[in-house]
Amino acid sequence: MAAAISFARGAPSLDLVDVEALKAATIAALEQDPAGATAYGTAAGYGPLREWVAEQHGVAVGQVLLTNGSLQADALLFDNLLSPGDRVVVEHPTYDRTLLYLRRRGVELVPVALQQDGIDVGQLERLLAEGLRPKLVHTIPNHHNPAGFTLSMPKREKLLELAARYGFTILEDDPYLELSFDGTKLPTMRSLDPTVVLYVSSFSKLLCPGVRIGYLIASEELIGELLPVAANTYISPNMYAQATANAFCRSGALERGIGRVREALRRRAELLCEELSQALPAARFTPPKGGYFLWLELPDGVDSGRLVELAKERGVVCVPGTDFMLEGGERALRIAYSGVGEGEIKAGVARLAEAYRALAG
Amino acid sequence: MAAAISFARGAPSLDLVDVEALKAATIAALEQDPAGATAYGTAAGYGPLREWVAEQHGVAVGQVLLTNGSLQADALLFDNLLSPGDRVVVEHPTYDRTLLYLRRRGVELVPVALQQDGIDVGQLERLLAEGLRPKLVHTIPNHHNPAGFTLSMPKREKLLELAARYGFTILEDDPYLELSFDGTKLPTMRSLDPTVVLYVSSFSKLLCPGVRIGYLIASEELIGELLPVAANTYISPNMYAQATANAFCRSGALERGIGRVREALRRRAELLCEELSQALPAARFTPPKGGYFLWLELPDGVDSGRLVELAKERGVVCVPGTDFMLEGGERALRIAYSGVGEGEIKAGVARLAEAYRALAG
Repeated sequence: MAAAISFARGAPSLDLVDVEALKAATIAALEQDPAGATAYGTAAGYGPLREWVAEQHGVAVGQVLLTNGSLQADALLFDNLLSPGDRVVVEHPTYDRTLLYLRRRGVELVPVALQQDGIDVGQLERLLAEGLRPKLVHTIPNHHNPAGFTLSMPKREKLLELAARYGFTILEDDPYLELSFDGTKLPTMRSLDPTVVLYVSSFSKLLCPGVRIGYLIASEELIGELLPVAANTYISPNMYAQATANAFCRSGALERGIGRVREALRRRAELLCEELSQALPAARFTPPKGGYFLWLELPDGVDSGRLVELAKERGVVCVPGTDFMLEGGERALRIAYSGVGEGEIKAGVARLAEAYRALAG
Repeated sequence: MAAAISFARGAPSLDLVDVEALKAATIAALEQDPAGATAYGTAAGYGPLREWVAEQHGVAVGQVLLTNGSLQADALLFDNLLSPGDRVVVEHPTYDRTLLYLRRRGVELVPVALQQDGIDVGQLERLLAEGLRPKLVHTIPNHHNPAGFTLSMPKREKLLELAARYGFTILEDDPYLELSFDGTKLPTMRSLDPTVVLYVSSFSKLLCPGVRIGYLIASEELIGELLPVAANTYISPNMYAQATANAFCRSGALERGIGRVREALRRRAELLCEELSQALPAARFTPPKGGYFLWLELPDGVDSGRLVELAKERGVVCVPGTDFMLEGGERALRIAYSGVGEGEIKAGVARLAEAYRALAG
């Protein structure tokens, strides 16, 4: 059998990673600040990278906590803010690892439907009017994982208004902010109302996942509460990788690379849509405008779990929609096009269509 | 005032870090395995480094979990094994971060005295005979932090016997194993009886702390239980740093550097002992045979907290013994000589002696 093609993992293919700039960045970091790059440092992360992130977001350095990937920031936040039994609103579908962590934390998850322009704020408002008092509303506003959708400006404003009125916190989980194909972006909710929004993001999509660098932007008070917890869990995050990332960003490599990444993702998404339209005309999807993912909905009666199995036998891997939902998702698939080249997209869709035909009989 | 001299942090000075070999290792890692060094990888850590650690310890690869520093391994273990109210035996004194994490976990800490040849197994045996049933006994067997002591061979055997008889697990926390000044080492307890011992160690002392790489050696079953927890907390540990560490170890740089590190530490410890004997004749200490730390005991009536304050005013920083104890430690100081050069040791001890004279009146 030919090598498996993976539409499964939300990760960049190697050609989207600037390996030469990474080499140069580590060398520069070790030459400019060998002590800082090799010592423990502080739980808040490598100082110059904190400063860089703070500048990017127009916040004070004390409002930035760098972590070992953004999921670690979520974990610290969830452990700090939430107690078993607390209610947390999640988009439906949403990122599977967020669901898994929150479940382990023992909170009560309240799913709210995700629409093409983001979370259904009407449904949320009705639930709130009926008495729901969530502690937290988790949202992935840009180029959603797994759905690919982006939260519209009116809905951002509505969500902020609801948060202020009903006293909940919004967790804005935003790793795909910079990945619109055309480079446009809406203002972050945090920038519109920092009092009700915690902001989490990542370097995984701009630099590479292997450096495991995420960050939280919050009040200095909350960061101050999280610092001793981080220190007593892992002393400090990875100084070696963070000093590398700092040199990478400040050398201009991030800025230079982003256009290339956007363009490659745009071409892949476009090709994927064309191939799906031709090979799987029964399937429905919204063409992505950025990010890594396309959400594919299949006709009634199709079991995506079974389809994933048949596809795997034919050498193409995707994640069934059920992984991203508390219930439902049986007809959906998440297709990640970030890790595959154009040739793989063509072959992968052909194999998927073959599996679909085998399933449909 | 002259720059502060720090006897406070258990970290290597920059001259003990092979910065040039680190540069070469990152370049090699990115050339040999660019995808592996930059991608997410798995929660267990970078495969080739897992293999290297497994070979060093004569275990299966599936028994090794690489983490973001060894404290993260402890945290995963403690969360998995312990419930609030469980009893955990700790050495007295012991590593302050272990105490802090265990306290937050809500377990009942049972201190057992540390002697020059390690934990007082007689006291532990009496407590067990009286009915104590700890879930875990935490020990730092080699060149103890903060005390500098090493657990003797007869006590290792006794501890293993007690663990088997009373059904507790030993957590062997062993970052200083390789740091005997003369290169000798006793067998690890894990190698003597893997059924009752969990083993945790670190690359911080051999490579550098900034790479934040620790590891756990345990049964494949326990590693299998921890993997999904790690994955849902931080997806995977730092592949970039781990691929660097792998290239560093396999290039021979680790082996080449260790002799130099031991010799530098030996010279510093020797000088520290000489200076202390001359400048603070009233203080008592055991000359270290390896590692980073010397435990200084002052005459009755001395308050080490106050001494630390007066010393700080004079430009030298150490940690008071109370930080490493549940109670007591008021007359003790931990002096870390790993991060200071020989000139700093002389000046630091002189300042400390000046503070002592000011305190003693």
